[in-house]
Amino acid sequence: MFEFELLKKDGNARLGKIYTAHGEIETPVFMPVGTQGTVKAVTKEQLLSTKPQIILGNTYHLYLRPGIEVLEYFGGLHRFMNWGKPILTDSGGFQVFSLSREKKKEGKHKAEVILTEEGVKFKSHLDGSWHFFTPELVIHIQEIIGSDIMMPLDVCPPYPVSHTTAKDAVDKTIRWLERSKKAKKNEWQALFGIIQGSVYSDLRRESAIKTVDLDMDGYSIGGLSVGEPAELMYEMTEIVIPFIPEDKPRYLMGVGTPENIIESVERGVDMFDCVMPTRNARNGTLFTTYGRLNIKAAKHRFSDEPVDSECDCYTCKNFSRGYVRHLFNAEEITGMILATIHNLRFYTRLMEEIRKSIKESKFLEFKKEFLDKYTGLK
Amino acid sequence: MFEFELLKKDGNARLGKIYTAHGEIETPVFMPVGTQGTVKAVTKEQLLSTKPQIILGNTYHLYLRPGIEVLEYFGGLHRFMNWGKPILTDSGGFQVFSLSREKKKEGKHKAEVILTEEGVKFKSHLDGSWHFFTPELVIHIQEIIGSDIMMPLDVCPPYPVSHTTAKDAVDKTIRWLERSKKAKKNEWQALFGIIQGSVYSDLRRESAIKTVDLDMDGYSIGGLSVGEPAELMYEMTEIVIPFIPEDKPRYLMGVGTPENIIESVERGVDMFDCVMPTRNARNGTLFTTYGRLNIKAAKHRFSDEPVDSECDCYTCKNFSRGYVRHLFNAEEITGMILATIHNLRFYTRLMEEIRKSIKESKFLEFKKEFLDKYTGLK
Ligand SMILES: [Zn+2]
Ligand SMILES: [Zn+2]
Repeated sequence: MFEFELLKKDGNARLGKIYTAHGEIETPVFMPVGTQGTVKAVTKEQLLSTKPQIILGNTYHLYLRPGIEVLEYFGGLHRFMNWGKPILTDSGGFQVFSLSREKKKEGKHKAEVILTEEGVKFKSHLDGSWHFFTPELVIHIQEIIGSDIMMPLDVCPPYPVSHTTAKDAVDKTIRWLERSKKAKKNEWQALFGIIQGSVYSDLRRESAIKTVDLDMDGYSIGGLSVGEPAELMYEMTEIVIPFIPEDKPRYLMGVGTPENIIESVERGVDMFDCVMPTRNARNGTLFTTYGRLNIKAAKHRFSDEPVDSECDCYTCKNFSRGYVRHLFNAEEITGMILATIHNLRFYTRLMEEIRKSIKESKFLEFKKEFLDKYTGLK
Repeated sequence: MFEFELLKKDGNARLGKIYTAHGEIETPVFMPVGTQGTVKAVTKEQLLSTKPQIILGNTYHLYLRPGIEVLEYFGGLHRFMNWGKPILTDSGGFQVFSLSREKKKEGKHKAEVILTEEGVKFKSHLDGSWHFFTPELVIHIQEIIGSDIMMPLDVCPPYPVSHTTAKDAVDKTIRWLERSKKAKKNEWQALFGIIQGSVYSDLRRESAIKTVDLDMDGYSIGGLSVGEPAELMYEMTEIVIPFIPEDKPRYLMGVGTPENIIESVERGVDMFDCVMPTRNARNGTLFTTYGRLNIKAAKHRFSDEPVDSECDCYTCKNFSRGYVRHLFNAEEITGMILATIHNLRFYTRLMEEIRKSIKESKFLEFKKEFLDKYTGLK
């Protein structure tokens, strides 16, 4: 089962609810990234303490490790990782293309990619082996994974890219979406369409219209937050949103900072995911009510304050900045764990406050108040 | 306050209770190692789930990081790490000597050491700075740390070592213990004496007699588990134990494997500490009822079993070998967390079973049953 209910609007900001086989999701929602079958540096219990409603998995990574035969043996990702709440899986399109543009990392292989009409041939960054993803196979893998929300294989050009290449990506993504839709077997798993078009208004419009024509369960806005200025990202979001039916969820992929999320909610986006809270946590960058904090800085050495005095997470309720700073300074994994718990809770708490403000028709007041504090004006 | 009560004997194996200002400790006890103010790769809550009674801190490491001024500002280690149970601190003698024997690690400085009658001058492995530890300073630092059980600064020769050098170490350790005892101010903190003597029976006897003459709160057997055969370690333990009064706890430092612990309990040892459960966990080596397990091995790929079907830890209650193997294979920190929780619980559960068997006068039966399973005979 998959349904979306629009509960309330405050300007273009929307309060909604998604119903899935693994439970309900209140929107706007932030989805922690659990690429390889875990959110990095926390256990399931610690993740649950941050009150997430849904997490992300990644088809590309899970296909390579542990492999679909393992996931099939264990009866899907929910059971494999003992996770009872909803899971959304990215198709792997983004990873296939973006990893091939990265420099070879130490001890890893250089990822490569060959794009054809049939699908995408790629070389694994793990062992250099070649694989072939078609839209049909990617649906099949996600049916084995058993994600509540599936993404179709799409073509993800880099930024910047020529209009011609961006147009080809839009067209191929649409043809692949048709094939994905036909391949899909399970009623209970939702399949979204992904709107591409880089930063070209005409392509974004064309992609939105053609994707919506296919009447998908929801709509993702892809190919943004890849290096373009934030203003262009907001502009592209504004262009496509009016084409998406009000009764379908809108998911801005890979976004973003607290500011990005607030600006996009204002424009009508319902769903977000980003590695920022978890990756930053492992580097010692913590999000707080009064902006970002480098916990490794010497000034926190004698600080008896919590990381964020307005936060209700395990880390803030139990430990001081001075202690967390010591753990990072002494290169203790425990520091990464505590920072991850805090940053994830910061993001879910932000979304809770956003939803509350929409419910009370005070979204713009909340936005001003939050950003004044967060950007240090207050 | 510090007291030891001997509750029962089964052969030489002892059931006892230690009373400290931070609560009681049932013995025989295993103490998880939390060198730098955390047990590695777990939070306090996860550590508590493994049911430890006391943890270890290290004076050398805490003196260098976060530094005594930080610990003083925070009112001691208990408050700094928000830990309510007892803490034992090692003096740092072992680290000062052993780090100077290690090869320089990448990005670190070569530790160096100069031993005098007054104390020990050493070069930090972190930044190459020089420091001077005296018996008095080491007591002072541990009074700031606020550990429930303190260790005096001792001289730790390597293995093997000449009789002459071992004799010098014994003599200096005794003279330093007299100075440590004089320097100690707080009534509530216990101070143990450390028995040295390498693998020389006469020196072990001499060290035991002279240390016990100083009427300490408890007695540590140091300088073992440093590379000598296990049989020699057991022999040295057997030699010194008869000299230690029955109403004082005996602590075999840095030991060991489950087999080592059982053999030493049989000889009358009450307290143990070792990095083995935590360090092995981070490398993917797990302790189980049926012996050690390399969780990274391919054979666990399709295993739906828990790590140890007889274990009641969070990891075994929630996840399969296949999942934990995947986390290690995918280099996820979450794998190290889950493995650490399991190994710590394996050790505390072993001690619970040892205590139960002594209480029921069935220690030798337990020993046989445990080792038969653990070494694969059953
Ligand atoms: Zn927090
Ligand atoms: Zn276990």
